[in-house]
Amino acid sequence: MIHVRVAQGVEDKLRSGFPWVYKQEIISYSKKPQKGELVVVRDYAGKFIGYGYINPDSTITVRILSFDKERKISERLVRERIQKAYEYRKKLSINSNAYRLIHSEGDFLPGLVVDVYDRYLVVEFTTYGMHTLRDWVINALIDILKPEGIYEKVSDSAKYIEGIPAEEGTIYGYVPEEVIIWEHDLKFIVNIPRGQKTGFFLDQRYARKMIRSLVKPGDRCLDVFCHTGGFALSMKKAGAGEVIGVDLSEGAIETAKRNAEINSLEGIQWVVDNAFDFLKRMHQEGQKFDIVVIDPPSFAKNKAAVPNAMRGYKELALRGLHITKPGGYLAVYSCSFHITRDHLLKALLDAAKDAKKIVRVVGESIQDLDHPWILQMPNTLYLKGVYVEVL
Amino acid sequence: MIHVRVAQGVEDKLRSGFPWVYKQEIISYSKKPQKGELVVVRDYAGKFIGYGYINPDSTITVRILSFDKERKISERLVRERIQKAYEYRKKLSINSNAYRLIHSEGDFLPGLVVDVYDRYLVVEFTTYGMHTLRDWVINALIDILKPEGIYEKVSDSAKYIEGIPAEEGTIYGYVPEEVIIWEHDLKFIVNIPRGQKTGFFLDQRYARKMIRSLVKPGDRCLDVFCHTGGFALSMKKAGAGEVIGVDLSEGAIETAKRNAEINSLEGIQWVVDNAFDFLKRMHQEGQKFDIVVIDPPSFAKNKAAVPNAMRGYKELALRGLHITKPGGYLAVYSCSFHITRDHLLKALLDAAKDAKKIVRVVGESIQDLDHPWILQMPNTLYLKGVYVEVL
Repeated sequence: MIHVRVAQGVEDKLRSGFPWVYKQEIISYSKKPQKGELVVVRDYAGKFIGYGYINPDSTITVRILSFDKERKISERLVRERIQKAYEYRKKLSINSNAYRLIHSEGDFLPGLVVDVYDRYLVVEFTTYGMHTLRDWVINALIDILKPEGIYEKVSDSAKYIEGIPAEEGTIYGYVPEEVIIWEHDLKFIVNIPRGQKTGFFLDQRYARKMIRSLVKPGDRCLDVFCHTGGFALSMKKAGAGEVIGVDLSEGAIETAKRNAEINSLEGIQWVVDNAFDFLKRMHQEGQKFDIVVIDPPSFAKNKAAVPNAMRGYKELALRGLHITKPGGYLAVYSCSFHITRDHLLKALLDAAKDAKKIVRVVGESIQDLDHPWILQMPNTLYLKGVYVEVL
Repeated sequence: MIHVRVAQGVEDKLRSGFPWVYKQEIISYSKKPQKGELVVVRDYAGKFIGYGYINPDSTITVRILSFDKERKISERLVRERIQKAYEYRKKLSINSNAYRLIHSEGDFLPGLVVDVYDRYLVVEFTTYGMHTLRDWVINALIDILKPEGIYEKVSDSAKYIEGIPAEEGTIYGYVPEEVIIWEHDLKFIVNIPRGQKTGFFLDQRYARKMIRSLVKPGDRCLDVFCHTGGFALSMKKAGAGEVIGVDLSEGAIETAKRNAEINSLEGIQWVVDNAFDFLKRMHQEGQKFDIVVIDPPSFAKNKAAVPNAMRGYKELALRGLHITKPGGYLAVYSCSFHITRDHLLKALLDAAKDAKKIVRVVGESIQDLDHPWILQMPNTLYLKGVYVEVL
C-alpha cells in the first residue's frame, strides 16, 4: 500500500479524529498514487496515523476510514460500519419509515450517503475513493437491510468533479419511481429520481415536529421554499387555518398538491414562484402571517460564497420579519456547513435591526439525529434552524 | 430628567435594541446624576434614544427600559411589562407550578428577577436603579398574580457591589421556608431562603426532560453537582437502575434525599463530596456509567475568568468521558454568559482528544423558555448544554 506522509503538526488534528488530509499537508508519497487507491497515512516521523483512500486531484486528498493499525480497510470493516449505523438508527426509534442510514463521515464512511425509503434504498457515492468500495457497500446493504431495491443517485459534481464512472438508476431489485412514506401521522410521496437530494428532506424531520408545536388553531401560515410541502402539511395537520406553500419547482408543487390530497388536508394554497419575489409581494400587499417558515437551498457551497450567502439569508429574514404578525413566529434555516449558527443568528439580528423589530428566540434545531454530528468532524453538522417570536 | 449623551457610533447598537450604555460610551451629562436616577439617553447630536436608569458607579452605567419617546418609565410601563411577561408564560403551558416570571432584560425589565413557586413569589433586584422602582414592581406583582406571599432575595453582590439598601426576607403576606412544587410527574422541595438562586434551578426544566429521553431501563447514572437532585430524580423516574447524586452542599443533599422520599424513588445514592475529587476517584476505581450529567456552577463570572473556566470545563468533561461507557451519554452544562456554546464545544472536543474518544452530539439545550432569550440582548442567553454519545 502506498504511504502518504503529512507535514509536522498535521498529525495532531488527524489523531484527534478529523479524517481529512488536505493536499498542501502532504509532504511525500512512497509511490505516485492512483485515483481511488487505498493508502496508509503516516506522520512526518513515519509513525502510523490511519488508513484511507486517495484522490490526488481533490483538495481533500485523503479521507481516513480507520485510525486503528490493526483494522485495515476491508469488506469486513465496511460491513461493520454499516451494521453499526443501522443499529444506531434502530436505537433512535425514528417515527417514520424513511431515514438516513449512512451519513458519510458521520458514520465513518466518508463519501457514502444511504437513505431508506420504506423497503427501498437510495445510495449516493460522493467521492471517487468510496466508489471504488461500491461492491462491498452494496453487498453489505443487501445482506443487512434486505431491501426490495436499490437506486443509485449520481450527482453532477460526483460525475464531473470527482469523475465517478457511474450512471444513475436502479442497481438492484425493483425501485418504483414513487414511494409513499410516512412520518408521524402524515404520508409523503417521494419521487426518487426527480426529488431533491435523495428524494425527500429527511434531515428536517425534527424541525417539522418543532414547527407543529408553534401552531395555534386557525393560524395563517406560510412555507417558503416548500419543496413537496413538508412544513406546510405539518402546520395544516397541527390545526393551521390558511396555509400557503411556495416553490419555484412546478414538479415539487405538483407533488405537494398530491401530498395534501393523500393526507386529506384541504385549504393549502400552492404557489409556483420565486421565493424572494413572492416575499416581496406579500410585504408590499401588507399580508401578515402567524408563522413564516423559510427553508432555502444552500447559498454557500464553499467558504468564498459566505458573504454573498449572508446577504441572501439577511434578505430572506428581513422579508420574513416584515410579514410576521407581532407575537407570530419566523423560522429560518440554513443547510450549508459554511454558514454557522452564529452566521444565521447574525443574519437574523441584522434583519431585525433593519425591520426595527425585537425578536425572542424560542427554539433552535439542527438536522435530525439520523444525520449524526460527530464533534470531531465539523462538516457533519450542516443544517441549522432558528425560531423567533416577533415582538 | 437628566440627559445622558453617548459618543458617536454608540447610537446604532442602542437603537437596534441593546439596552446597556457603558461608562466609556458616555460623553456628557446635563447635570451630575445620582445613583438610581431616571435619565434620557441621547445620541451625540442630541436625538432621543431611550429612557433608562443610571448607576454612575457601575461599568454598565445606564440600562434602557424604553426606546419609545412617548413611553416614559412609569408605574404603568412597569405594570404592562409584568403583565406581558405573565401572559407569555401562560402561553408556554409550562408543565410545572414553578417558573420564572421576570427574566430581567429578557422581559425588558433589566435588574429584576421574579420566580413563581406555587402561590409564592421570590423577587430579586440585581441593580440599584431597578430597586428604586421596587414599589411599582411589588404592587403590580400583587395585583396581577395575587400571591399569598412575596420573599425578597438579596444577593451579596446586590448588597455590596450595587449597594442596594435591602435586607432579605418576606416582604408581603406569608412565605413558608419550604414550598413543594411539581414539575412533570415529580415533586420537589424548594427551600427559598437557603436554596441556590431563588431556590431551584428552574432554567434546567427542559434539560431534565431531555435527559429522561436518553435513559434506558436499568441504566447506571451519575448526577454531578446535583444540588437538590433534579437530574438524579428525573433519571430514576425514567427507569434508571443505580443512580448516584453528588454535591458539596450537605443542605442540598439533605433536601435531595427528602425529594427522593416524597417521590417514592428508591435506589439513589447521595454523596456529599467535591465533584472534581469524586470524578477522579470514580475514574481511578474504573467505575463506568451509562449516563453522566455534569451541571457545574458558573466558573466565569466575567470575561477575564474565561481561560480558567475553560480549564475547569475541560477537566470536568475529560473526567466525565473517562467514566462513560461506550455507547453511553455525557451531558455537560455551562450557566455562564461568558462561556459561549462554541467554548463549551471546544472544551468537550479538547477533552475528547485527551481521552482518545470520538463523540457524537445527540442534543443541545439552553435555559427553558420562561427564561427568554432576546436576540438583541446577548446576555439574556446564559445556559447551554451539550449531550454527547461516547463511541
